[in-house]
Amino acid sequence: MKRMPVVVIAAVMAIAVIGTMTFSAEGADEASSPIYGIKIPAGYRDWKLIAVDHLLLAGKSDQLRAQLGNDIAIKAFREGKLPFPDGSIIAAIHWTHVASDGNDKVLDGPFPGTRSFVVGSRVNIQFMVKDSKKYAATGGWGFADFTDGKPGSEALHKTCFPCHTPAKDRDYVFTRYAP
Amino acid sequence: MKRMPVVVIAAVMAIAVIGTMTFSAEGADEASSPIYGIKIPAGYRDWKLIAVDHLLLAGKSDQLRAQLGNDIAIKAFREGKLPFPDGSIIAAIHWTHVASDGNDKVLDGPFPGTRSFVVGSRVNIQFMVKDSKKYAATGGWGFADFTDGKPGSEALHKTCFPCHTPAKDRDYVFTRYAP
Repeated sequence: MKRMPVVVIAAVMAIAVIGTMTFSAEGADEASSPIYGIKIPAGYRDWKLIAVDHLLLAGKSDQLRAQLGNDIAIKAFREGKLPFPDGSIIAAIHWTHVASDGNDKVLDGPFPGTRSFVVGSRVNIQFMVKDSKKYAATGGWGFADFTDGKPGSEALHKTCFPCHTPAKDRDYVFTRYAP
Repeated sequence: MKRMPVVVIAAVMAIAVIGTMTFSAEGADEASSPIYGIKIPAGYRDWKLIAVDHLLLAGKSDQLRAQLGNDIAIKAFREGKLPFPDGSIIAAIHWTHVASDGNDKVLDGPFPGTRSFVVGSRVNIQFMVKDSKKYAATGGWGFADFTDGKPGSEALHKTCFPCHTPAKDRDYVFTRYAP
């Protein structure tokens, strides 16, 4: 797949915003990630679900997480197609993992001792964008991390690719499509 | 909103299947839930994400869960519109919550002691379907629970509505839209 000129990307994003009725203000954020120059893709909150996970990040936070994919990424996941084609974008939303006392009260009747945890506030969001030419030096992937709409530091972004290299045989993607 | 005749629902489902390239064999399952007569809605795996949660169901299982909504439900969630309009469907997918040794090995370097949990196999899927006339006796909601494509028992389905009554002020829906 050829690299798309910026104007085409902008048009696609505009269509995505209109087509999916995005309510997130983040889509309008103009900040981009260091090194990779990636902005928050408009409409990503409406992308299809890849999987969810739970990360107890020692000494930092306890997180509930979801990974969403644009249509190109979702198709590749389902077909088990590797490497992911150019244009694939994977979004990861990370929230705090908080106890739900309300749910526990309800569930304690039929299931004594049950504990329910729901999402709290957002910790951060991350994106992996596949462009095999632009990001040839990092496995064809560009990375981006945002907290409250603001991109993380250059130092932080330097850690993305090395951390993903153990998943090289899955094109640097840890997440597997949930059944 | 008027109740849709079966032929219209079937057409909508057919379009959903074609439009979203659903690969799940479950969509073709013809079994329906006791009491409510609800079948697995085709294409539900591609619906938009409402939220995720983690349920430690005492003595039964440890689950990672995601709630997805059709477009009518998603719109109502975002607009904070209650009660949910007829035609709203909420899908809940429940998976086992399993430790990921592979992820732990990677993350233990930068974050010693970190523990990662991913989805394992599916436990069950559940649906809430809003039809204020058809399901007037149960708050306007019909319920359905499926394990491996097969609906749960009538006894199980009798527990759905009573368990949801504590959430009456939120139209019987516990899940809140994740930020």
